[in-house]
Amino acid sequence: MRALGVGIVGGGYMGKAHAVAMAAVGAVFDTALRPRLEVICAATPASAERYRAAYGFARATADWQELVADPAVEAVVVATPQALHREIVLAAVALGKPVFCEKPLGLSFEESREMADAAEAAGVANMVGFNYVRTPATQFARRLIAEGAIGTPTWFRGEHTEDFLADPRSPATWRTRGAANGTLGDLAPHMVNCALALLGPIAEVSSEIETVHALRPGASGTEPVTNDDQAQMMCRFASGIMGHLFFSRIATGRKMGYAYEVHGTAGAIRFDQEDQNTLWLYRSEGPAATRGFSRILAGPEHPDYLPFCQGPGHGTGYQDQIIIEARDFLRAIETGTPVWPTFRDGAAVNAVIAAARRSAEGRRWAAVPQV
Amino acid sequence: MRALGVGIVGGGYMGKAHAVAMAAVGAVFDTALRPRLEVICAATPASAERYRAAYGFARATADWQELVADPAVEAVVVATPQALHREIVLAAVALGKPVFCEKPLGLSFEESREMADAAEAAGVANMVGFNYVRTPATQFARRLIAEGAIGTPTWFRGEHTEDFLADPRSPATWRTRGAANGTLGDLAPHMVNCALALLGPIAEVSSEIETVHALRPGASGTEPVTNDDQAQMMCRFASGIMGHLFFSRIATGRKMGYAYEVHGTAGAIRFDQEDQNTLWLYRSEGPAATRGFSRILAGPEHPDYLPFCQGPGHGTGYQDQIIIEARDFLRAIETGTPVWPTFRDGAAVNAVIAAARRSAEGRRWAAVPQV
Amino acid sequence: MRALGVGIVGGGYMGKAHAVAMAAVGAVFDTALRPRLEVICAATPASAERYRAAYGFARATADWQELVADPAVEAVVVATPQALHREIVLAAVALGKPVFCEKPLGLSFEESREMADAAEAAGVANMVGFNYVRTPATQFARRLIAEGAIGTPTWFRGEHTEDFLADPRSPATWRTRGAANGTLGDLAPHMVNCALALLGPIAEVSSEIETVHALRPGASGTEPVTNDDQAQMMCRFASGIMGHLFFSRIATGRKMGYAYEVHGTAGAIRFDQEDQNTLWLYRSEGPAATRGFSRILAGPEHPDYLPFCQGPGHGTGYQDQIIIEARDFLRAIETGTPVWPTFRDGAAVNAVIAAARRSAEGRRWAAVPQV
Amino acid sequence: MRALGVGIVGGGYMGKAHAVAMAAVGAVFDTALRPRLEVICAATPASAERYRAAYGFARATADWQELVADPAVEAVVVATPQALHREIVLAAVALGKPVFCEKPLGLSFEESREMADAAEAAGVANMVGFNYVRTPATQFARRLIAEGAIGTPTWFRGEHTEDFLADPRSPATWRTRGAANGTLGDLAPHMVNCALALLGPIAEVSSEIETVHALRPGASGTEPVTNDDQAQMMCRFASGIMGHLFFSRIATGRKMGYAYEVHGTAGAIRFDQEDQNTLWLYRSEGPAATRGFSRILAGPEHPDYLPFCQGPGHGTGYQDQIIIEARDFLRAIETGTPVWPTFRDGAAVNAVIAAARRSAEGRRWAAVPQV
Repeated sequence: MRALGVGIVGGGYMGKAHAVAMAAVGAVFDTALRPRLEVICAATPASAERYRAAYGFARATADWQELVADPAVEAVVVATPQALHREIVLAAVALGKPVFCEKPLGLSFEESREMADAAEAAGVANMVGFNYVRTPATQFARRLIAEGAIGTPTWFRGEHTEDFLADPRSPATWRTRGAANGTLGDLAPHMVNCALALLGPIAEVSSEIETVHALRPGASGTEPVTNDDQAQMMCRFASGIMGHLFFSRIATGRKMGYAYEVHGTAGAIRFDQEDQNTLWLYRSEGPAATRGFSRILAGPEHPDYLPFCQGPGHGTGYQDQIIIEARDFLRAIETGTPVWPTFRDGAAVNAVIAAARRSAEGRRWAAVPQV
Repeated sequence: MRALGVGIVGGGYMGKAHAVAMAAVGAVFDTALRPRLEVICAATPASAERYRAAYGFARATADWQELVADPAVEAVVVATPQALHREIVLAAVALGKPVFCEKPLGLSFEESREMADAAEAAGVANMVGFNYVRTPATQFARRLIAEGAIGTPTWFRGEHTEDFLADPRSPATWRTRGAANGTLGDLAPHMVNCALALLGPIAEVSSEIETVHALRPGASGTEPVTNDDQAQMMCRFASGIMGHLFFSRIATGRKMGYAYEVHGTAGAIRFDQEDQNTLWLYRSEGPAATRGFSRILAGPEHPDYLPFCQGPGHGTGYQDQIIIEARDFLRAIETGTPVWPTFRDGAAVNAVIAAARRSAEGRRWAAVPQV
Repeated sequence: MRALGVGIVGGGYMGKAHAVAMAAVGAVFDTALRPRLEVICAATPASAERYRAAYGFARATADWQELVADPAVEAVVVATPQALHREIVLAAVALGKPVFCEKPLGLSFEESREMADAAEAAGVANMVGFNYVRTPATQFARRLIAEGAIGTPTWFRGEHTEDFLADPRSPATWRTRGAANGTLGDLAPHMVNCALALLGPIAEVSSEIETVHALRPGASGTEPVTNDDQAQMMCRFASGIMGHLFFSRIATGRKMGYAYEVHGTAGAIRFDQEDQNTLWLYRSEGPAATRGFSRILAGPEHPDYLPFCQGPGHGTGYQDQIIIEARDFLRAIETGTPVWPTFRDGAAVNAVIAAARRSAEGRRWAAVPQV
Repeated sequence: MRALGVGIVGGGYMGKAHAVAMAAVGAVFDTALRPRLEVICAATPASAERYRAAYGFARATADWQELVADPAVEAVVVATPQALHREIVLAAVALGKPVFCEKPLGLSFEESREMADAAEAAGVANMVGFNYVRTPATQFARRLIAEGAIGTPTWFRGEHTEDFLADPRSPATWRTRGAANGTLGDLAPHMVNCALALLGPIAEVSSEIETVHALRPGASGTEPVTNDDQAQMMCRFASGIMGHLFFSRIATGRKMGYAYEVHGTAGAIRFDQEDQNTLWLYRSEGPAATRGFSRILAGPEHPDYLPFCQGPGHGTGYQDQIIIEARDFLRAIETGTPVWPTFRDGAAVNAVIAAARRSAEGRRWAAVPQV
């Protein structure tokens, strides 16, 4: 067991989640590497200091380059706005430091690929923060599908739907400005990653992307919205499976509508993040009279559940997903073995998004570029 | 109150449902017209006689023309295989007799339009048997949307999914032969009709249609499947709303997956026929802390519920939908006022299907023809 | 196949349900006996005539004795207020006519036993209208338990909860007057019957009965409520199983809360009438990781479902339960074999209620009398 | 902000949960007091050392008295088997140290009262670990009831059901030996505490307690089970409300069946820990046609949710409840103000259990002793 100095760039929502995770992960998983909270970086010296005190870091800075270069920082977590990911990541890997970067990796497929290339060239551990695939339920779903528990998959439907901008009177913010912050740029990556995790690469998509509420109240009168409210795509996996993906930030009533269903020749799976400790499984076995979807509660038999609670039905939550990510990142550093999803996997997500944009523009099917 | 002689062509599943409905509708709804079961027609004299005795008709025949021409038959219900709809319907309307025809109306858009033209020219009552839109819950959903209870709709997702052919080892039958009996031809019309009922005309679709299990055990060895197992379409309603439709007969675990969700600027609605007495409604009102989807149980306040049971939560079922259809058909005859969905509405459903086929062939968006 | 003249005493809610059932049952079940609607009896000549016309009876009367004595009436359905059950039933069985009587059978255990004795002495078919045990789901639950699918039962919890008097401002009506019309007298019998059907006789109970809202608005000022709003009882089945029953008409939010759960050594069952086409089944088999309650949709494999609809998930409703009852009553008449629940079974329900009243008065356990 | 030395007695399941909580609570809640993990005590030096390393404590011991007396230990968490609670707690409070003790507080009502007396006499912060009442959903339920959102409560039903001993072939363990480890002694306290939290004191109970599986496989042949498998009680709250409680460790299919429902004159609440991020709320307002139970997802508007995640629907889990407890314990120490549930509240839970045992023995109602 040895300590590992950690620096986190970004002190807001996700920065905090990672700070808590780094504080707790050792005790939860009895990890070989034990994070030591070295440096936190935020937009201003004052906010950085506030976060430092709150989260328990040793030092604070408003200069991410200082954090990255700090010799006591042996691993970097990037939890900044997306536009800064590339620069920070490239600087860190250039110094040979392992990097965990929040999703989506880069602003574009090209950026993400560049980051993956750089990290691989540097030979450093690298991971993207697609936390939702780390719930015990979704990890178990992935295993069930891989083991053939539902036979050969024949259909995938995924969505990531929320309603934080459902009200047309909600004011313009950074979320309503710029493609990267739109639904496809910001929400979609989670579920695209999930689709890839469960069923493998997507080969082709046909997409529609739209801004339903084109104008919103701004600081000085009405402001045009410059990104999308919702998007959908029909898709064809490389394996030949047909699917559909839907993303929305105006899905009234949906709070964390990260949900999927997979049909197979011998069973089916359903999941909804709004009830994250439940996996619904149907098996085409036994008498028809007793067949039905089973509501399986997450429990000790499912991946990464037991370290959080011994009893089934006790349940894990959002913060626990981040702790599992931290364990995986530490394991990647410790063992030198890449832990999924790597930057390369993150680039694969961007590739699907890029194809969707091309498809929607041309109103036709578009191939997903090779990663 | 007066009696009305009814003839039903087709004695199987749907023929029986209509026979029961005609026997019960008068007492349930205290209708002005009271059906008298005159003639039942089936494929052979023996089967017709068996149905006659079972359902309580006065006479049986294996000749639908005899039934249609029978002077005691004042109204005709067509519950035969689809391929016979056109001929029977045209013969009945030519004699000035009201016709209720099971869904889908015709084998093609052109056929359906011809039948609508003929019925309108003859000035006879005409209806198509899209029974699922007649549940109290879906009728109420339609009313809520029309009244603006969820604001302006922004998204529609519908599916009709079952799993009766999910097992690749299930043998070939009439269901696996011919486009009209495939998923798009046979299952899709119900939910397309529902989409049109809830949100108005569809202008354009982009579709994928596929046969996942291309070969099935046949009478003598393997038999090729000549129609589709599943199909999806992105769609654009004439009102500008974006949507998605999915149809499958290989949706393992789904038994009656006639389900839809509608997002609006001020609320949302969800429904699943597998729990047909429940409508889920979300309203963006009141404090955020107490907002959530409400599970509304069908009850006396909802359309056409009270005649079946006075208490909320007591519930109606499949047969009751057919009884409601019968009431509507009788009312159309009695009042001379068309009752939705008419043959024209049935043709509109075929129009969407036709556009989907064109779209899938060309792998591009296709406009829905004018009805 | 032969016709059977039927008379129904009571034209309101339940009278109508039985009239519809008698009109439909032949076609639904292809019964050997075919009901012919002979006479309907209601409180006044005018209301009787109105019901006659609406439901399609041959004759109307306001004199139940006339109905019972009518030679064309070969079987009698009693759907009057409870207070009249005894007199009508005794008159009908005295004439050797089969009787179907709505629940609860008599106003007291003694009355019910007298009716059972009389019917058995006369050797006529007799049944009580506990319709809810006739859903395909509950029939299937009964079969599963009997077959040992959940091992040896260890616990039963049942409730019948509604909220029609939850508002203390709801006015006094006949429902708030007299023990027979209270929660224990009127609602409880359904679920007591269900408990007996699923797990056999109850030996002993310990009960609490209360009137939460003791005064309600009356015709002239405030009126005292003379029966109970809710009641509960711990119970011990003759087999040794422990259980609990709860009944309420002030269970805010509950519309048809006829619900039960049964734990067994090898499984468990849950049911809620508000979702009557679903049975939840848990089996302690297979790997722990995939165990969970399965949501089984009523379908053709379940008792009495197929005659209503061929497809699983299509669903039956309240009226269909009454049709199933009609089929069972006809079968009892035709075969001369008693069909459960007979008057004797109805008396067993009263016996439990009687013991509950004694228990609540003395605030101690009370034995259920022998039936 | 200042550090607070913490010692935890007990390194197993609950000891670990508290260790993780103490490591994370500062960052999560930005607490004024920051726990420093000083000493962990376990049964043997070896296990203590293992826990120390795993959880990150400074020192390990197998002697709880050493831990309690350690000057660097400023606050003590007791997470040992119940039989040790009293001695450790009394020693710690005698030294003027704040104590957090796992539930149930003492083995008996008398023990718990003694501990409460001692802690109050010493003037030290004291809390009992009833973690389940700390979910955002249940905290919100408590607030809703207190604020009258469901009107005047009229009924409470609570259960704590699990199935870890449902299989009669499960071997005898410490859980099957001794009253304190039985269902009533070990599981019941959580839900009794919840009932008291939501509706206030219970005045009287009538109970049944039973050992369904009296013999289990033991180390050497069959071993008698010396405590209860399940228990139920009818109860009467001091406010006059009627209720029922049920506890089982043989509730096949239930994993964390900590569930309750409360009916009120203007609404109702339902909760099930197996879906801990959902609260079901019914309000008797608005048109009857749109009333129904609303599924409210835990979110930032609910108590203690926001520090874990900003988005609604993201969800908290079991470990987060323990972190909330840690925050409350720290706050009690910091402010000198008792934080519910105190030892006195813990004794109140024991009082109900004690009355239930008396009631079951005498098979009659028993008054709950004054606390």
